Amino acid sequence: MSKIRHALDVRRDDDFAKWYQAVIASADMAEESGVRGCMVIKPWGYGIWERIQRLMDDRIKAAGVQNAYFPIFIPLANFEREADHVDGFAKEMAVVTHHRLIADGAGGLVPDPEAKLEEPLVVRPTSETIIGDAMARWVQSWRDLPLMLNQWANVVRWEMRTRMFLRTSEFLWQEGHTAHTTREEALEETHRALEMYRACAEEDLALPVIAGEKPENERFPGADETWSIEAMMQDGKALQAGTSHYLGTSFSEAAGIRYQDAEGTQQLCHTTSWGTSTRLVGGVIMTHGDDDGLRVPPRIAPHQVVILPMLRDKPEDEAVLIYCEEVRASLADQSALGEKLRVLLDKSPGKASAKRWDWVRKGAPVIVEVGPRDMEGGKVAVLRRDRLWNTENGKPNMQFTPRGEFARRVGELLEEIQQSLFDEARERRDANILHGLNEWAEVTRFFAEGGKYPGWVEVQWARPTGAALDAVVEQLKAEKLTIRNVPRDGEAADGTCIFTGDPAVERILVARAY
Amino acid sequence: MSKIRHALDVRRDDDFAKWYQAVIASADMAEESGVRGCMVIKPWGYGIWERIQRLMDDRIKAAGVQNAYFPIFIPLANFEREADHVDGFAKEMAVVTHHRLIADGAGGLVPDPEAKLEEPLVVRPTSETIIGDAMARWVQSWRDLPLMLNQWANVVRWEMRTRMFLRTSEFLWQEGHTAHTTREEALEETHRALEMYRACAEEDLALPVIAGEKPENERFPGADETWSIEAMMQDGKALQAGTSHYLGTSFSEAAGIRYQDAEGTQQLCHTTSWGTSTRLVGGVIMTHGDDDGLRVPPRIAPHQVVILPMLRDKPEDEAVLIYCEEVRASLADQSALGEKLRVLLDKSPGKASAKRWDWVRKGAPVIVEVGPRDMEGGKVAVLRRDRLWNTENGKPNMQFTPRGEFARRVGELLEEIQQSLFDEARERRDANILHGLNEWAEVTRFFAEGGKYPGWVEVQWARPTGAALDAVVEQLKAEKLTIRNVPRDGEAADGTCIFTGDPAVERILVARAY
Repeated sequence: MSKIRHALDVRRDDDFAKWYQAVIASADMAEESGVRGCMVIKPWGYGIWERIQRLMDDRIKAAGVQNAYFPIFIPLANFEREADHVDGFAKEMAVVTHHRLIADGAGGLVPDPEAKLEEPLVVRPTSETIIGDAMARWVQSWRDLPLMLNQWANVVRWEMRTRMFLRTSEFLWQEGHTAHTTREEALEETHRALEMYRACAEEDLALPVIAGEKPENERFPGADETWSIEAMMQDGKALQAGTSHYLGTSFSEAAGIRYQDAEGTQQLCHTTSWGTSTRLVGGVIMTHGDDDGLRVPPRIAPHQVVILPMLRDKPEDEAVLIYCEEVRASLADQSALGEKLRVLLDKSPGKASAKRWDWVRKGAPVIVEVGPRDMEGGKVAVLRRDRLWNTENGKPNMQFTPRGEFARRVGELLEEIQQSLFDEARERRDANILHGLNEWAEVTRFFAEGGKYPGWVEVQWARPTGAALDAVVEQLKAEKLTIRNVPRDGEAADGTCIFTGDPAVERILVARAY
Repeated sequence: MSKIRHALDVRRDDDFAKWYQAVIASADMAEESGVRGCMVIKPWGYGIWERIQRLMDDRIKAAGVQNAYFPIFIPLANFEREADHVDGFAKEMAVVTHHRLIADGAGGLVPDPEAKLEEPLVVRPTSETIIGDAMARWVQSWRDLPLMLNQWANVVRWEMRTRMFLRTSEFLWQEGHTAHTTREEALEETHRALEMYRACAEEDLALPVIAGEKPENERFPGADETWSIEAMMQDGKALQAGTSHYLGTSFSEAAGIRYQDAEGTQQLCHTTSWGTSTRLVGGVIMTHGDDDGLRVPPRIAPHQVVILPMLRDKPEDEAVLIYCEEVRASLADQSALGEKLRVLLDKSPGKASAKRWDWVRKGAPVIVEVGPRDMEGGKVAVLRRDRLWNTENGKPNMQFTPRGEFARRVGELLEEIQQSLFDEARERRDANILHGLNEWAEVTRFFAEGGKYPGWVEVQWARPTGAALDAVVEQLKAEKLTIRNVPRDGEAADGTCIFTGDPAVERILVARAY
């Protein structure tokens, strides 16, 4: 029997939602702000987001997309003109109605009635309509196309029930918006962005994802096609980790994004939009976290190696600190995963053992401890966060390594950790997707009896539309299920629709979801 | 007489405000958004801001400050508790009062009366109060200090008269917020941030600045001390380019930021805050722009070298493009100013001459043109944006250089341009500060008769307070003047106060300002 005493007091298997909150709190990633639906992203959580941003931004720029910035406030009229779009968003937006406060005469402040806006402004829930206005100004001729823009920004969608990183009223994201001459080119961009998201998720965040098209009922309001990447969390639920939309010409028509083609004829642009958000951080937690806290994949870890000097308020402390500084300097010269190694020598006050467990809970990929004995032997004690425990003796799996050897091998070690986190998640994901179900009763049985965290099923369907699709959605909803997507790389259908019995046209993933 | 035909149709000397707008428009940096007081920052303008961000963020992190993110919405109660602070901001804030829109029955949308917030929320004009709440939660003991945070964010201050980059309702900025055990340590941080801003402005943006303390009447609402860096624009006006505040214990007291000291006693923290914004981009334009558009200092140029193939729709075009690609690759391998060179091969459609002038107006530091003849001679035609004209013949000052030599020298060339922009601005600034005035009449005469763009004066004063200071402020205001700051590195006073005739205690800079 394992003698391991885990660093968290709640285990994934016991209460996943409580465990999720415990990881966030004990890794010092974020907290409730006291402001309705908004969180504070603390330095460690924000540092992970900054790393994701940096790596994704490099990919965005490499694709020839340019960053820009558009106003946070959107006039009501922009929403009024796009009926489908506003139906999807109108219910959950923050509305600015005044531009001044005045004293209420009782020590408080109230909106100044004299400063009421003629037209209320909406805090952007997404920027299609305001960027559409700009595109209409900027696009005149086919020579101005493609126009490919991206914005890193905060957006607000009023939420009644919030969960940190996954669903908050304000969140941080990037939104790409592009305009093209043809449907083909816009679809190509839709897929380029989707593939970029897959690569980011899998290569940078070590999140295995399935890329595919959303069914009609799950489309972005106003879109012709919506594609997503879907990741499986450790409780078997799906997390939509990024979406890419082909918007056809409907947004162009509403905003007047027209170009003159080579023959001099006015044409509507075909547009796309695509986005990912701080929700990705939630996906990292629920994929890589364990009963000792977070495990951050090295590529997105703010610090990849943390050095902890074991000080005892004794004269030899100074020599240990000098030794640690030497180790730090030799590591800072190394590269890992194509970048300079990010190493921290943590000299903050506190006991070394308490600090070790803080960094374990934060999920730094490699923790290096240095005490007087290590120093004398020219060694360091290395702890891999992804292989924390010696399961035989139930103790942390410390590897005592000559410092020179460690410095030479650290790049390789971090690559190994990055790969191993991905492999572990992919194996779990693949083991938890059930294929080959032909009857609805099998689906309900799977979710009723498939254990606490059942996973996903892949089934075949006839892609019904209209009322028939509504019926399917209701049937799924009764089991708290949703269609995640039609996997892009899925096999062709060869059976009958599990809902209607008609000949199937494609395979879909069905799951509970965040 | 010069035959030069400048790229802009308005000159700095004729109408500075109109020239400023012309630079922004013709360099494609930003435009009015159609949303009250908000601008759209276009890719070239945003790219410059991204470079400023990246370089400043490196400095911020190197100082041990951690980035985090706080809610955009601030409850009214936060403002109510800090009387001085709210007096300074209450007049210009965007107020969210509803969280949903509904159809008005006539095709429009209105705020849903059912969704009125119990307590209105303010869109942050600055985050002292909300970050103060977090600090109060995070700081318990002296071991938690110093706590040094920074946020990159958008903020909103409702403005009636706006000017792109300089004064807009929404703008982008960074705000540092730190808490310390002692006054000394907080003052040290106030000065560290000020010095960081000076270094950023001078080394990265090539903006010569004067660092100094603001007079009492110009302090940040609620601050004990406010320090600034001031830059002189080409119209002789001052631009406050960054501020650093020592807040004493007043924000700590309002938010309850207390720590237990080593003896177990509860103490109030001493806090600071410091900020710079997209206004810096306005400073770059008004310092380095000329009658041909913008000139971007190489360190903050999104592209430092732009290669323009001179194509003629002829068979040799292909060879020219291949040659250009080789030049691009050889440049991309080079370093300049401590970073990889940023080089763009601009293959967009359009005539080479039109594209040249576009890049001149955008201010790319070096433009490289390549036509068939250059290719045959193994050369490139190099145009330095900071030495655009051959004043003898009034033509662009093209230097035909062997491509290998150019690649070898490009790093050095960019360093030269960076330095030369700074030197030019510093010489102009120094030549336009008048010292040694002893009479108020001399000051008024200087601003009345000192030419269209008179510059600044340095005078001595007795640092009056209260009503005496109010009188000084009024006296200055009548001439549209303000006190910029008390230069940190200024000489000691040795005369009498130009306002009161009392013995002077320090020297101040007086100027018209943005």
